[in-house]
Amino acid sequence: MTSHTQPARGTRDFLPADVRRRAYVIDVVRGVYERYGFEPLETPAFEHIETLLGKYGDEGNRLIFKILERGEGGASGRADLALRYDLTVPLARVVAQYQHDLPRVFKRYQIQPVWRADRPARGRFREFYQCDVDAVGSTSPVVEADILGAVTDVLVALGFDDFVIRLNHRRVLAALLAVSGVEPGSQAGALVAIDKLDKIGPDGVAAELAARGIGAASAARLMEAFAAPGDRLAWLEGALETSPDGAAALGELRRIVHLCQANAAGAHVRVDASLARGLSYYTGAIMEVAVEGIGSLGGGGRYDGLVGMFLGRDVPACGFSLGLERIIVVMAERGMFPPRIAAGAVDAVVTFMDEESQADALQMASALRAMAHAVDLYPDAGRKIEKPLKYAAARGARALIIFGEQERARGAATVRNLETREQHSVPRAAAAAAVARLLAASPR
Amino acid sequence: MTSHTQPARGTRDFLPADVRRRAYVIDVVRGVYERYGFEPLETPAFEHIETLLGKYGDEGNRLIFKILERGEGGASGRADLALRYDLTVPLARVVAQYQHDLPRVFKRYQIQPVWRADRPARGRFREFYQCDVDAVGSTSPVVEADILGAVTDVLVALGFDDFVIRLNHRRVLAALLAVSGVEPGSQAGALVAIDKLDKIGPDGVAAELAARGIGAASAARLMEAFAAPGDRLAWLEGALETSPDGAAALGELRRIVHLCQANAAGAHVRVDASLARGLSYYTGAIMEVAVEGIGSLGGGGRYDGLVGMFLGRDVPACGFSLGLERIIVVMAERGMFPPRIAAGAVDAVVTFMDEESQADALQMASALRAMAHAVDLYPDAGRKIEKPLKYAAARGARALIIFGEQERARGAATVRNLETREQHSVPRAAAAAAVARLLAASPR
Repeated sequence: MTSHTQPARGTRDFLPADVRRRAYVIDVVRGVYERYGFEPLETPAFEHIETLLGKYGDEGNRLIFKILERGEGGASGRADLALRYDLTVPLARVVAQYQHDLPRVFKRYQIQPVWRADRPARGRFREFYQCDVDAVGSTSPVVEADILGAVTDVLVALGFDDFVIRLNHRRVLAALLAVSGVEPGSQAGALVAIDKLDKIGPDGVAAELAARGIGAASAARLMEAFAAPGDRLAWLEGALETSPDGAAALGELRRIVHLCQANAAGAHVRVDASLARGLSYYTGAIMEVAVEGIGSLGGGGRYDGLVGMFLGRDVPACGFSLGLERIIVVMAERGMFPPRIAAGAVDAVVTFMDEESQADALQMASALRAMAHAVDLYPDAGRKIEKPLKYAAARGARALIIFGEQERARGAATVRNLETREQHSVPRAAAAAAVARLLAASPR
Repeated sequence: MTSHTQPARGTRDFLPADVRRRAYVIDVVRGVYERYGFEPLETPAFEHIETLLGKYGDEGNRLIFKILERGEGGASGRADLALRYDLTVPLARVVAQYQHDLPRVFKRYQIQPVWRADRPARGRFREFYQCDVDAVGSTSPVVEADILGAVTDVLVALGFDDFVIRLNHRRVLAALLAVSGVEPGSQAGALVAIDKLDKIGPDGVAAELAARGIGAASAARLMEAFAAPGDRLAWLEGALETSPDGAAALGELRRIVHLCQANAAGAHVRVDASLARGLSYYTGAIMEVAVEGIGSLGGGGRYDGLVGMFLGRDVPACGFSLGLERIIVVMAERGMFPPRIAAGAVDAVVTFMDEESQADALQMASALRAMAHAVDLYPDAGRKIEKPLKYAAARGARALIIFGEQERARGAATVRNLETREQHSVPRAAAAAAVARLLAASPR
């Protein structure tokens, strides 16, 4: 007897109701992304280890699950493969590998698990799904607007209405740091501090900026940017007028905000100069979906250099990753799932009271399934009807069809309406039709 | 620039057409299993290593992918986790872990990848999907008949008609070996030889039996069992009349064959005394689906002892695993996929000739998507219409909607029918409806 029957740390078993809830969300995501013309891609669970190392920063390297080399004489103790850490690096590899088979603008979605050896916490797992949508091959800001439109449509279709799309630009951030007087050597540290604004508040960020050796005047100017009331774009334009690159990046942001007015994203998008995003590969616009009191449901941005790490020449790209786990946690807490999703009810259960009636029961199940009804067969009724009755109730069935000695003698089936608790004896030849009528009269 | 852009050995990237074909098959499988009342289960990609070791035999232990321990100071060189090797052992663990939450008879399906460090070959991969269906908690032969009915319905729904369900019983095999005079110590070796009948033919098996020290008389008697013409069940009944356990097991087989006549499996099921099945955990009926000239599409059987390895008390179980990869290979070779599955066509492509028309294009895409059309947005048209035309053709679109300077001046959109190559200028306010009419008139 093995001692461990729990799943490994940070992973979960998904029992039927869990799978149904997850499948519901995934179907909505897939439906919207398909409607936007994105195409599905799937990549292997593991990659050559060198494909992943060095793409996610030091922290990422440490959190990658590594697979032992297989060897004739047993394991060498070395790792040559590693589990997928996100869906963006595999996409970049795929674009490099199949460049001649893919359309010039490749729009793909990918919904698969990724693995990170992070410390598990509430809502943070070591195996979790990402729902990614990316467009590779275009620098047009229409791509950002279209992707944000898709993400908005997904969230609205799932029932979210109170989300904000925070929008910023890596080069706006860089310019802001520069004009605030933050030395180039301190900019990366300042970004780390700024990224925590949501978690530790303005005072916390100010303290961390000070601790990182950023002067009080610079810190104050930065904090002002994050706190500026009213039109952030106008404020930033003033602040960055001395920075040509900052002004150009700001022009891109303004363009994206303008284009978003042409679709559903416009009602949600807000420029937020404090958005930093952790991953190092972003080069342009960065975005994050946040819900008040909940935090981030996903994020993304433009990364025009990552594909080049595999291909040797740069290919522009932009994408967004929705976090399935957080969405599901919030939807469950807020009661946003249609009630019957988790139940997975069957229409009817067929059972038998004795061995001689087994074939009759199988035949009835077959007939009903051929009529497209979902029908379970309870295989161990014996003489007592209580067990199949309890089982049928647990499965949410509306009808129980019983075969036994009496029914055999009469050439009949007993059809029980589990909602009204009425039951009737029906001639065998008419029984499937009688069940179909019962089901039609009490739709789910 | 990273040198590897190929996926790791034995794994594959699935480009959009591949994903669509796979999703088509998985949807058919899921639909049938749901109609049979099976419920979905998903388990993590990796398990505690001791959960998997010792469950699949020596060969299995060797082929398990092992994951390095994470440690503060780096990797220890030891493995503590391992990638899922099949879906049956995780099911047994789940049944033990959640015994009080699951129904007394738990019928689940599970469609997930598994990983084996096997030598890759045609149709054999290191990452591949299994589609498993199992019923846990009942010893009734109705379970075998119901599972074989489901497997039959899946294959028929996919378009297979020339398959045979080979059926045998572990205890019939054991009795056959015993009455043929094969010593208990040689029986496991004899099973290995018998399992190769498909691959190496009767002469090959006879030679291997001899090489394994099985006497000529015993070997001849065994070979006779596999070659017996006519009613195998009748022949086996004669051969096993001196073995009470063999006769009892044969009774079970006969019962399963009888019950299968009550559903679609009856037309395909054949008792085949030479079926052995590799895995060691089977205890009763074993079955395999074979297609002439192709080989096995999947197999399964009863395993009444496996759950007990986790739970400490035996729980009966029976299941069947369809191999997705082999099914897809055969369906592709035979042209069994509906032609439009792989195409994943969008209905329309929207594009723009200049920057000023970007918002118009986004708005049109939004309007069409809100009408449930699948619409792609080509983001880089520039002055030439050739690129978006080519792109729209590649996406299988039936309409291309163009916005440019002329259209803006007239308050119009240009709507091009990509099948007839006609195009018209349509007032902006009427353009979405015009596209919808065009799409309705030329359905996919």
